[in-house]
Formats: sequence, C-alpha cells, structure tokens
Amino acid sequence: MDATFQQIGIIHSCFTEKFGIPRQSGLIPEAHAELEIFPPYNREEAFRRLETFSHIWILFIFHAIKTKEWKPCVRPPRLGGNQKIGVFASRSGFRPNRIGLSAVKLLAITKGDSCIKLMIQGGDFLDQTPVLDIKPYLPYADAIPSATGGFATERPKTKMKIEFSSKARSSCIEKEKQGYPGLCELIVQTLSSDPRPAYHSQRPLRKKFGVKLYHFNIKWEIMDDHILVSEIEDC
Amino acid sequence: MDATFQQIGIIHSCFTEKFGIPRQSGLIPEAHAELEIFPPYNREEAFRRLETFSHIWILFIFHAIKTKEWKPCVRPPRLGGNQKIGVFASRSGFRPNRIGLSAVKLLAITKGDSCIKLMIQGGDFLDQTPVLDIKPYLPYADAIPSATGGFATERPKTKMKIEFSSKARSSCIEKEKQGYPGLCELIVQTLSSDPRPAYHSQRPLRKKFGVKLYHFNIKWEIMDDHILVSEIEDC
Repeated sequence: MDATFQQIGIIHSCFTEKFGIPRQSGLIPEAHAELEIFPPYNREEAFRRLETFSHIWILFIFHAIKTKEWKPCVRPPRLGGNQKIGVFASRSGFRPNRIGLSAVKLLAITKGDSCIKLMIQGGDFLDQTPVLDIKPYLPYADAIPSATGGFATERPKTKMKIEFSSKARSSCIEKEKQGYPGLCELIVQTLSSDPRPAYHSQRPLRKKFGVKLYHFNIKWEIMDDHILVSEIEDC
Repeated sequence: MDATFQQIGIIHSCFTEKFGIPRQSGLIPEAHAELEIFPPYNREEAFRRLETFSHIWILFIFHAIKTKEWKPCVRPPRLGGNQKIGVFASRSGFRPNRIGLSAVKLLAITKGDSCIKLMIQGGDFLDQTPVLDIKPYLPYADAIPSATGGFATERPKTKMKIEFSSKARSSCIEKEKQGYPGLCELIVQTLSSDPRPAYHSQRPLRKKFGVKLYHFNIKWEIMDDHILVSEIEDC
C-alpha cells in the first residue's frame, strides 16, 4: 500500500546548510523559524485554537537527502560515528519513509491576506524544509516522564567555552541591529551543541570550521580549552 | 510537491472497531498490540539497538476514514462535540495528510525467519492500521515538562465505577484462560476512558452500548452511579 501526501507548507530557517543543524529539536532555543502555510491549507479556521498550545509537532520531509535508497543501519554522531545501529533505532533521515518529527515551541500565528505563518522556536530544520503536518503537543500523552532513552539519554553538549574575537563580536552586534536579533546567542548555542562530525570530535583532524547561519559564514576554531568564533562573513 | 510513502508494516490490535479506541495513546495500558514488519524492511539490522528504548513513536495512516476530503474544522469529543476547532489544533484523522502519531511502550522485539514483530503496549490503533515509520522516543527532546496543552490538558476519564455482572465476569475469566490474558482489565480501562460519543456523555440518549474488543462484543449499560458490563458475546 502506497500513500501520497501533499506538502502543506515550508520552513524558513536560519540553518541554511546541514552542518550546524542541531541533532534534535529543543537544543537551540535561539533558533527561530517561520512555517509558511500553502494554499489550500492557509485557512484561518484550520488553525483555530492552535495558539492555546505552547508546543506543536511538525512532521516534515528530509528533503536534502539525494539518494533514494534507504540504509538499514546508520552511524549516529552520538556514538562517535563508529558504531552501527538500526535506522529505526535512530532519528536519521536515511529511513524508508523520509518523514521527520520535531517538537517546537509555538511563539505566534500570524494570519491575514490568505497568508498564515507560524513563528516557531527551537527547531532543527534545514531552510526550505517541506512540511506535511502540524499537530498540537499533548502533554498528557506525549510527555512520558518514565521513558528511558537507549544510547541517547542526554543532550549533546560540548564542555568547551565559546569566545568571540573582537572583530567577530562587533560584526555580530552590527548584524543583530540589521535584523538578526539574537545572532550572538544563536552562534553560541549552535557551537555548544558541537556540530562537528563525530570523527572530528573523537580525533581532531583539523581545527578550523565554518558554519552557515542565515546567509553568514561563521568561522570558528578549536583552541586548547575553548572555541573561538574568529570571523563572520557574508556569503 | 507530492511525496509517496510505502507501508512498512501493519498493526494487529485488540481494537477491531473505531468505537472504544482510546482518544490518545497511553490511556489504556492493557491495550497490547503487535506491529508486524513487511519485506523489504524486515531486516534484523534495521532494528539493532531499538530494544534499548523503553518507548517508540509510531507514525501510521488513519486508514478507516473513507472520505478523501479534509475538513478545516473538527469537533473534538473532549469539548463535548459542540465546539469547532481547527484540524491542526487537533489530533483528528480528518487532516490533509492522514498521518497519525502515537508514543507506545516497546515490550519486546521478536526476530526470526524473516519475520520481525514489535510487541507494544498502550496504543490507540485500530486493527490493521498501516505503519509508515518507527522512531525511538528520545526523552531529552520529546518529553517537554514545560509544555501546556490548550483545551486537552488532562487525561479523559469517567468517574463512574465499572462493575461486571456475574455472567460477564465468568465469561471474561474463561476467555482470559483461552488466550486473552488481561481481558477484564482491558475492558475496565476501555470503559474508564469513556468511549461514548460526546453528545451521549453530555445528554444521555440511551443507556446500552456495545464495544468490540478482539472478536468479542462487550455489552455494557449506564446505571445510576456505575457502568455495568452485562454480557460478553462472540461476534
């Protein structure tokens, strides 16, 4: 039995490339995104009372995976990239049906002129992610305090302090004024969740990295005991 | 953008008709079900380490909805059936893309002879539900203690005590011995979650009901201060 689904909307996110995207939702609170609803789903009444929920589920498509094949096993970064686990024991996009699932904070819904947008926070979406469904997060059914989580029991987090060069700091503050509020904190939270590929965090092969946020290339380096944000370039 | 997905498995559940199905997962712990994985997804390695998670997400299709149209508004039973809310503010199946989402307890995975089955507990699935995806429940990302839940903040529960007629009780005990362990408790839990249509629980129009569990018709009545399970018939 095959099932065909339509895209109901698209996500506009600060994560414009895969590198740097948090490995789950909720890890980078400063990650703001906008979910734009497409016709014919952009009807105000279809969202009535949604604003009474603090959080929502977004079901989306992993659209940036080029191969059509699925892999029975994946190597999660959380396990250092050298252990294989089943794809169904992971949240990887290389699954038979490439549906992703993320809970995000719902900040606001803007309605008007046949245009409905949901302002969300804490997502782990690549920019331009196609959305299939939106559901309210029901605490009594969805938050399971007794659940235990296999190998991925804790939030991924680097212990290294994050510092900015004076050039990067002033560039960041300037961009915040130009319409990117919270950019400094977004950079800190993104680097805190350690976006390096697993083999790098195990055995550092190089020390300089770049991560793209919005249309900025954030250049950063691993120093002895901290991470240095060295430069912020337009790209 | 359309997306086509394949069914990866099917659920064999005690709920053989819509009436009586809990309104969310987790409400009826005694509801046991079996998720059978179809080829080519029935590969042992695709499930490696899944058993280390206590709970899993199941993404499924609402297959019993006959109409192909979606409704922008629904009348949730939780609001007495007389208030309309947006379909995206509900977990109703009458949504543009009929994907359902439920967290269930993972009891066991049986593997062998190209046959993979997941034994699950606490689901809200109609028998024969087609499954699209299985994901581990990650407590640090999925359990959000701060979430608040709009109109559906508490578990639905009737306050009425549930009693069995002596005929129903002995019939139930007999069936438990014949391969339906926990049937009495399943009946109690099912009726405790008040499966009556909303307009009945508001203004009782009739007092006798039947709910189908496995291939049994459970007959029950609303008495003055309790619910009486009067008879259990094969059907």
